[in-house]
Parts: sequence; structure tokens; C-alpha cells
Amino acid sequence: MQIDILQAAELLCAANYITILAHERPDGDTLGSSFGLHFALQQAGKHSRVLCSDGCPKKYRFLTGDYTPAQFDEQLVVASDIASVKLLGSLEQSYAHRVDLCIDHHKSNEQYAKYNLVRPGASATCELMCRVVENMGVELTPQIATALYTGLSTDTGCFRFANATAATYRCAATLIDAGADHAGVNRMLFETVSLARMQVELDIKGSLELYCNGRLAVMYLTREMLQGTGLNEYDLEGTANLPRQLEGVEVGVLIKQEQGAEQCRVSLRSASGVDVSAIAATFGGGGHIRAAGCTIPGSPAQVRDSLVAALSKVLC
Amino acid sequence: MQIDILQAAELLCAANYITILAHERPDGDTLGSSFGLHFALQQAGKHSRVLCSDGCPKKYRFLTGDYTPAQFDEQLVVASDIASVKLLGSLEQSYAHRVDLCIDHHKSNEQYAKYNLVRPGASATCELMCRVVENMGVELTPQIATALYTGLSTDTGCFRFANATAATYRCAATLIDAGADHAGVNRMLFETVSLARMQVELDIKGSLELYCNGRLAVMYLTREMLQGTGLNEYDLEGTANLPRQLEGVEVGVLIKQEQGAEQCRVSLRSASGVDVSAIAATFGGGGHIRAAGCTIPGSPAQVRDSLVAALSKVLC
Repeated sequence: MQIDILQAAELLCAANYITILAHERPDGDTLGSSFGLHFALQQAGKHSRVLCSDGCPKKYRFLTGDYTPAQFDEQLVVASDIASVKLLGSLEQSYAHRVDLCIDHHKSNEQYAKYNLVRPGASATCELMCRVVENMGVELTPQIATALYTGLSTDTGCFRFANATAATYRCAATLIDAGADHAGVNRMLFETVSLARMQVELDIKGSLELYCNGRLAVMYLTREMLQGTGLNEYDLEGTANLPRQLEGVEVGVLIKQEQGAEQCRVSLRSASGVDVSAIAATFGGGGHIRAAGCTIPGSPAQVRDSLVAALSKVLC
Repeated sequence: MQIDILQAAELLCAANYITILAHERPDGDTLGSSFGLHFALQQAGKHSRVLCSDGCPKKYRFLTGDYTPAQFDEQLVVASDIASVKLLGSLEQSYAHRVDLCIDHHKSNEQYAKYNLVRPGASATCELMCRVVENMGVELTPQIATALYTGLSTDTGCFRFANATAATYRCAATLIDAGADHAGVNRMLFETVSLARMQVELDIKGSLELYCNGRLAVMYLTREMLQGTGLNEYDLEGTANLPRQLEGVEVGVLIKQEQGAEQCRVSLRSASGVDVSAIAATFGGGGHIRAAGCTIPGSPAQVRDSLVAALSKVLC
């Protein structure tokens, strides 16, 4: 059943023991919205906890601190920023059929909860959660505001992408008025890079190859580059956008050599009209017009040859 | 004489031939506010023009197009985002004593105009200009809104820095409602890099040296790195922030070898409590607590030795 902001707030106000679920491999929006709600429920004198199948990535530790979920029998289960029960990870078995309220902004949301507040027009689940918390009558504290600001900022690339709307900016203003440490959050998430990540970025950019008169850029992320760096998937976030950032490039391709098999994971990014999801589809992948991906068997050079052949037809 | 938003709007409404001055080596805020006002005056059926001692940098060409200022006898001269008449460049001689209205957000503004609307609390002159235009009764068109959004975005590092306030975000929301191409502006200014700039950034990052247990990072920008790149000062914007971005670094130093003399221009950036303006002052420079600069005679290695010695006392 679809519900509105006010109804979601009423459901939360009526419960006293509330479990909040964040999605696997958590990002800034699922953590920001889950902990924003958790802090708001605490503020309202309720018992609440956040559960997630995976640990909190180091860069979001400022949100959670040394968090250990409380033990209790829950009256209400809320899924935050979770489009499908498959994204519950190891919590799927216990919670897939027990989600009472889902608050989410993904268009692909599968409406698996008893009550669904799903708004694809929102830039982030945090944008919705801010309105839910306000309608619960809870005063936004700096802690709640900082958590909710985090999801707004990460899901919009720090207010850079087209999904940020006037409503997103107004929501950020409300959160800053409430004491969100916006500059601190952005410094930690967008202005800080580890030595290992910097080195790998140098290697990726150093591998640049240009085709089709500079309209196609290819970069590589090989096993060798990652060896001994200790970097995981989270640490590599955003590297897929590097090839497209070059001036004049219409399609940017990052070829990531997989660890196990002789195959590569390919990220395609389009700066203009080229529909990269169509290219990805010819290799069994998919995605959106401007951001798509696929997995292609072979060495990085072989994968490059196949991709350049396919993309040349469109770009050269 | 200090005036308020409404009085500035009234002065503009009363004139029909208006010259707007942008500062030398123009940036996004002086160009955004000047052209935002220019477009608003055109919209109001007035004659206006923007004058600047230097040409428009390539990356801001989207704002100005192929602009040629009109010829007329002006009734009102407006300086936009200009803290001192010295920043008029080659226009100083003609206009230094003829500025009727100054609209600016710099704390250091010298109040040289007949009427001064100076608000250091504003993140950007564009934030003030937006309110002036609204008070003129001019409807914000997408063209006006895109120009004004540009200054908000560039002066706050795309809403990343501490100078962005709730009012800044609300102003951005108003401009997006009016049709500002926010995603396009941010893509052009923050997501696009030239091949030459990317190469120089690789060289700068590759020159990293760490001191004081990783709390002090030093990078170099040598004459050799710039040779044959064709990059000018504008193209190098932001490079001074690169050393500080490293995780764990408290002070980041970029040592830029000068072209003419055997000396280096040093940029100091602090991530935490270290007051780098005090360090810069010991070398005859100055600035703010977190961002300062100085010029030191000698080769890059000699300059590095002097700086590391001075900073070790604070950091090691």
C-alpha cells in the first residue's frame, strides 16, 4: 500500500520499538537516512536500532561512531533506501517478509513492504526522511541534521548532478539551519583521499588511451595496480567517472580487470547524446543512457579491442 | 555610503544606461553577477554593458557567448564583486573615481563607491545580486538564473565549503526554480578537465613528499611540468588544494617555481587547527588561518627545506 509523508510519520509515532534496515554495502544515503531516523526516534524517547548486513565503511564512521544495535522485540520494521529485499543481504531471510514501512526514492522499488513511501522524484531517501522527521514533530538536532545532510550530498555528488532539485537545496538549507555540519561532511567525503587511492588514480589516469579523435577515452584498472594497496570496492567509488571527465570526450570507458576470472568489468559513461546502455546491452549488460556497465571475457587489451570496435561505429 | 538591497534595486531602476564592471582576471562570481545583472537590465528594457580589463576565460564562455559591449554614455556605473579599485586592472584609470554603486561580499571591500552594498556574510556576490534583481521586479529568466547560479557554485566550491550558508542553498533553489541549468554549469566547471591539466595534476601528485609522520604534505609545480602545456593561471586553479586532500595531512604545501626569477610561490593549506597564515607571515606573506601564501627566494628544494624546518616546529 502506497502512503504519504504524514502517514509514515504517524506509523513511526505509534510504535515504541523500531528496527531500521539499511541496504547491503551501505552508502551515504542508506546510512544517513537510517541513522537520521534512529537519532530522531531516540530524540522522541523511543527504542530504535539500525541493522545492516555489512559493516559501516570507514568514511561514514563519523555518522555512526562505535555503534552497536540494541536488543529488543521490535514493533515496527522500517526499510530505508532499499529498492528490493535482495538488497538486505544476510538480513533477507529474517526480514524480507516483515518490512512494515519502506521509505525510498528508487524508481525500481518493488513495493515489498506493507506500507510504501516511495518517491522517485526525491534526490535521496534523506530528502524524504527529513520531511518524515519534521512531520513526527521531532526537533531536528545537529546530529539528525548532519546524518540527513550526508545522504543529500552523497546521492547528488555534492549538489552537482541533475537529480538535485530546488527541493533538495531547500532541504539542505533546513538541515543547515538545524546545525548540520555540512562543510565537515563534504570535507570528509569529497576533499579527502587516501594515499593508496591517490596512487591508484594516478595509475588509472596514466593508462589513458584516446580513440575517435579524442571523443572516446579508455582507462584501465588492472589487478597489478590494486596489488598490495588494500583498497576495496568502496575505496574505488567514482573511478568509473574519470575517463569521461576529459574535455572533448563523449564516451568514457573504464576497464576493470577482475580478480578471479580472465574477464573485465566495464563501466561506460556518456557525456552527451550517446546511449551507452545500448552499447552495454550488446555485451549482455545494461544501465542508463549516460551510465552503463557490462562484463566481457578476455584480457584488458582484448576487451578494449571489442569495445573500441563497437563504439567506433557510433563515435568515429 | 552604505545602502541596502532595496536601495540598490532603486538606483538600478532609475537609470537607463548602465555600465557594469567586473574585476580583472575574472572568476565565476564577478562574471556571473555582472552578466546576471546585465541580462536582468536587458530584460527590463534598459541599455547595459559589462566591461572587464581581461578577456573571459574559456571555461566561462558559456555565460557570455561572443559578447561585445555596447557603446553609450552611461548614467550609472556599477562595480560587481570588486573589493578595491586596484582590481579594475586597465579600467582603473577611467573608472576608479566614477563608481556609483558597488555590490560585493568581500570583507576587505574598500567602500570606494558612492553607494556601497557590501555584505561579507554572503557566500558570493551572486547571492546579493539575486536579491537585488528580485527587488528590481525583474522576472528571473533561465539566462539570468544560470549566470547567478554560476557565482554561487564557484565561490562555494560547488556548495562544498563552509562559506555556503542556508541562505546560499535557498538562493540556489530560487534560481533552479527559475530555470538555471545547474547540472550543466557544474558539469562544465567541476566535471571537465583538459588533457594538459590532467597531465600536470598527475605530475604534481607524483611529486608528493610527506614529512612529520604524514601530517605535512609537499607537492611541486615546476617550470618543467608546465613547459609546452599552454596552461595559464586559470587552468591551474585549485591545484593548491591537492596536497591537503591526502588523508591524515594537516598542512598541505604547493611549491610553484616562478617563471622569471629564482624564487617560488608557496601555497599553504591547513586541514585542522594549524594557522598557516602565521607561517606565511614569517616568510613575508599572509592570508587566512586555513589558506595562506608567500613567495620565497631559492630553488624548489631550498624553499622546501626552509618550509619543512618552519612547519616541523608546529607539526612534529
